[in-house]
Amino acid sequence: MLANLNKFCSLKRDIAQINIDPLQRGGILTPEARAALVEWGDGYSVCDFCAGMLDHITNPPVEEFVHSILPEFLGTDEVRITHGAREGKYAAMHALCEKGDTVVVDGNAHYTTVLAAERAGLKIEYAAASKPPQYALSADAYQQAIERAYEQKGNVSLAVLTYPDGNYGNLPPAREIAEVCHDYSVPLLLNGAYAVGRMPVNARELGADIIVGSGHKSMAASGPVGVLGASEEYARPIFRLSATKKNKEVELLGCTVRGAPLLTLMASFPAVVERVASWPEEVDRARWFSGEMEKMGLLLQGDRPHNHDLMFFLAENLYQISQKAKKGRYFLYRDLKDRGISGIKPGLTRQFKLSTFGLAREELEKVLSAFREIIESYQ
Amino acid sequence: MLANLNKFCSLKRDIAQINIDPLQRGGILTPEARAALVEWGDGYSVCDFCAGMLDHITNPPVEEFVHSILPEFLGTDEVRITHGAREGKYAAMHALCEKGDTVVVDGNAHYTTVLAAERAGLKIEYAAASKPPQYALSADAYQQAIERAYEQKGNVSLAVLTYPDGNYGNLPPAREIAEVCHDYSVPLLLNGAYAVGRMPVNARELGADIIVGSGHKSMAASGPVGVLGASEEYARPIFRLSATKKNKEVELLGCTVRGAPLLTLMASFPAVVERVASWPEEVDRARWFSGEMEKMGLLLQGDRPHNHDLMFFLAENLYQISQKAKKGRYFLYRDLKDRGISGIKPGLTRQFKLSTFGLAREELEKVLSAFREIIESYQ
Repeated sequence: MLANLNKFCSLKRDIAQINIDPLQRGGILTPEARAALVEWGDGYSVCDFCAGMLDHITNPPVEEFVHSILPEFLGTDEVRITHGAREGKYAAMHALCEKGDTVVVDGNAHYTTVLAAERAGLKIEYAAASKPPQYALSADAYQQAIERAYEQKGNVSLAVLTYPDGNYGNLPPAREIAEVCHDYSVPLLLNGAYAVGRMPVNARELGADIIVGSGHKSMAASGPVGVLGASEEYARPIFRLSATKKNKEVELLGCTVRGAPLLTLMASFPAVVERVASWPEEVDRARWFSGEMEKMGLLLQGDRPHNHDLMFFLAENLYQISQKAKKGRYFLYRDLKDRGISGIKPGLTRQFKLSTFGLAREELEKVLSAFREIIESYQ
Repeated sequence: MLANLNKFCSLKRDIAQINIDPLQRGGILTPEARAALVEWGDGYSVCDFCAGMLDHITNPPVEEFVHSILPEFLGTDEVRITHGAREGKYAAMHALCEKGDTVVVDGNAHYTTVLAAERAGLKIEYAAASKPPQYALSADAYQQAIERAYEQKGNVSLAVLTYPDGNYGNLPPAREIAEVCHDYSVPLLLNGAYAVGRMPVNARELGADIIVGSGHKSMAASGPVGVLGASEEYARPIFRLSATKKNKEVELLGCTVRGAPLLTLMASFPAVVERVASWPEEVDRARWFSGEMEKMGLLLQGDRPHNHDLMFFLAENLYQISQKAKKGRYFLYRDLKDRGISGIKPGLTRQFKLSTFGLAREELEKVLSAFREIIESYQ
């Protein structure tokens, strides 16, 4: 079996011209990051001049990036590099909560929040989102969830807010939710996997005590890599030092990203700061795009007007086509692919999400034309 | 502060011609892996055609790699991709041990084994290594450690053996140690961070129930990436599925390496299989090299004859030089660097480790000449 392995040597990516997968739009590398991959590709390359702590490496300038640049960018006291948003959430939960505690989580939470809580042995109380088509979250929903948890004698040691969520791209009222959490002395963790690196987000201004971001999801980095920021109060337990191994942070197992992904995060960072500054134009393009989609009979769900590039559509017309189309429910995936577009999961027609992030108006025109052509071709 | 970021865009690696750092020798990419980095660099690139489980992605052929190739390569029933050896150790400890349990660990263990245990809330009982210069481990030492733990009413739920350790490159009698552990019904985890990808290692043949390897340390991969293998009995709890999120493995938080590092692991793998087959020549070169070092007055520690490329030397003569040299204890680092050699930690002279892995005889000659020249230049 170990004889015929050559196929693993030169695997090529079979990728469409335009990818509208929300998961992938924010992780496309800048040319600088692609060069960094080659320059720093070897295993443990960032450790050439390490004195024992990843975040204090000065050549390359990881220390400045982690201890000066990122705290300012995220609006937190302390930041560390993680393997991604999920690993950051788990680290925070594991450090701040006791097994059996309850964590309050928004009803739109990413599945990894649930897994992180499950791994940490925590119960989950959901802050319910409002009914379709809004799926909106409110401070009231958090208050009710915390109250419910207390009624069940749960010790609520953390709340998580997905900002925005990965289904509808809704941006909930973080500031108000944080205030409610703080009224109950519950720290709030902001899951900014779809925010940090795409749009302005400042943990301090939003009242979040902890924030996680994803390098490969939204910071133009090659994964796995993420950021975990915390206010001083919570940074202390999360980034606590080992009792026996000098200078090693327990929750990070000493070091996390011991290779090139961190350097891609750094190499892309200037471009990321720039794109965050043009966020209003991103939102404009998303709104225009969803307006055009709705003219074709699709229905945008979630916030209205929409405030993010991640959008969820209901498409009864495409579902009707799938009932009769030759390729059944896979027709949309294949018809889009024929037109150079990928990123909507194979088999989905009646509802799906997509992202317009980083796509020029001409590219979005192409996506819209594809949908238009497909719908017309089945009439 | 976020204004002047351009320096992060094009960071170059300041690297010597020959790097003898044991941490880095096994993680140098093959040309195929370097190409894979560029091809698969974008965030979440491996997820183009994912149906929900990283290890079951068929394009690229992750499923075949993880479920057929790697289990055969490691000699285990199940394998998953991790962020590295330390993350694999923590996952196994967290899944198999209860907080307060005792884990028996060899006295030569890597610091990350200690951190993983600390993070999982476990006590450590050490199986002591023998006195210098051997630092050898025995089945007896494990038996005594298990007995001591029981005397203290500890529940010993796991034993870890570092194979080889990262200080002396010692290869302990794993088979005998596994037998002792099994006599006490304690599963054995083999930390193969310096073995898997360098030398032949088969968990089943060695009697190990669980094995971890490191892609960036020893499998010519761009980190962070590693492998975690387990026999069926222990794979079940370690890779258990979520109670609520279908098809998601809790201990891995769903997916681990969602990017290029996995593709570099795959791209390098054929070359890794080949180099493992030439392991006897690696050992020969290491023995010849250490013999030449000893002729210069340095003393090899650990196994004798030595069975691994990682070697630890005592160098009283270099220490003597450092007492008088202009640059003090940094003379060795700088004098080696002047001769195109890096990898010995700045400031070390009296004792240090190095690796000959993957270096041709001519390159090792160059390293030996450098040491010879340096010693002579201070006489």
